Amino acid sequence: MTDKRRPGRRPGSADTRGEILAAAKKVFAEKGFDKATVRGIAREAKVDPALVHHYFDTKEGIFAAAMRLPITPEAVIPLLLEGPREDLGERLVRMILQVTATPETREPMVAMIRSAVTNEQAVAMFREFISNALLHQVADRLEVPHLRIEAAFAQMFGVIMGRYVLKLEPLASATHDELVEVLAPTIQRYFSG
Amino acid sequence: MTDKRRPGRRPGSADTRGEILAAAKKVFAEKGFDKATVRGIAREAKVDPALVHHYFDTKEGIFAAAMRLPITPEAVIPLLLEGPREDLGERLVRMILQVTATPETREPMVAMIRSAVTNEQAVAMFREFISNALLHQVADRLEVPHLRIEAAFAQMFGVIMGRYVLKLEPLASATHDELVEVLAPTIQRYFSG
Repeated sequence: MTDKRRPGRRPGSADTRGEILAAAKKVFAEKGFDKATVRGIAREAKVDPALVHHYFDTKEGIFAAAMRLPITPEAVIPLLLEGPREDLGERLVRMILQVTATPETREPMVAMIRSAVTNEQAVAMFREFISNALLHQVADRLEVPHLRIEAAFAQMFGVIMGRYVLKLEPLASATHDELVEVLAPTIQRYFSG
Repeated sequence: MTDKRRPGRRPGSADTRGEILAAAKKVFAEKGFDKATVRGIAREAKVDPALVHHYFDTKEGIFAAAMRLPITPEAVIPLLLEGPREDLGERLVRMILQVTATPETREPMVAMIRSAVTNEQAVAMFREFISNALLHQVADRLEVPHLRIEAAFAQMFGVIMGRYVLKLEPLASATHDELVEVLAPTIQRYFSG
């Protein structure tokens, strides 16, 4: 019933994926992350919802692809939960440093931060995604209070901003090992305190 | 010799202070914080350098006034250094929370962050001010490695962004006491670790 494809558009054609992503960007910007639905994105893209699921699995997956984020919450959360709890601080710090180490994966995240800081509509979308798809999921799985997970987020958000946007020295040139030594105990304390 | 006041301009007239600030904004934006001088700002404002010193004391003071920052490094550093070293984390967290608690004092700082995130010229100015006038001064007075003071800055920068720009909950509604309980041990560890 939501299948209102224009004549001549084949499901799964080369540009279908791109059209779904363009539709998703529009829907997320208008409705925010929470109120956007796969069905609504499919309607905007004039494709069947099953096709959206086929390409992107979940709403989180569409969001990550539309924002060109290098990681999805579904991929990150298991990595955090695997392995000993007492190394969680170091695992998280290393993962964030690795994901932001190359310009290709970092730039979309920095672009999202820039738009969140300057655009009221983007900030609501970013807030809902960060809170509901990421931070509170991790917090609830690990039984950590939400305020503590947000303190950990704030620490790493500030580090990425200081390292790649403000380019403070020595923060910008520090090695991953140097940063892990300074930051991992902070993150570990938030997750175990 | 730099006294090139136009005829009819009285030193100390009602708009002299405002004109010095307008000139300072232009000079800081063009030269950055490090290379800007009181003499250069006076030349741009067409007033005597002594008048600039009379109004604003130091280059740091002019910068804080031009950016409408509620605090100057000269005022903050003694507050941090006073009192027992083992309470420094709590003192710093409380001071930052208090300074950012009211919109009048918070908005200029948020505006500076917004422009730093979106404007290459502003970012250089902000970086030099933050590093050289603030963080490294505090670090050197307290004999704390620069990387650790930048980690502390990143933590509090992320908290202010999360609380007032992204408006993450529960971070945005947490009381000062709740935030001190979570954050003060982190800051304390960076200053003493």
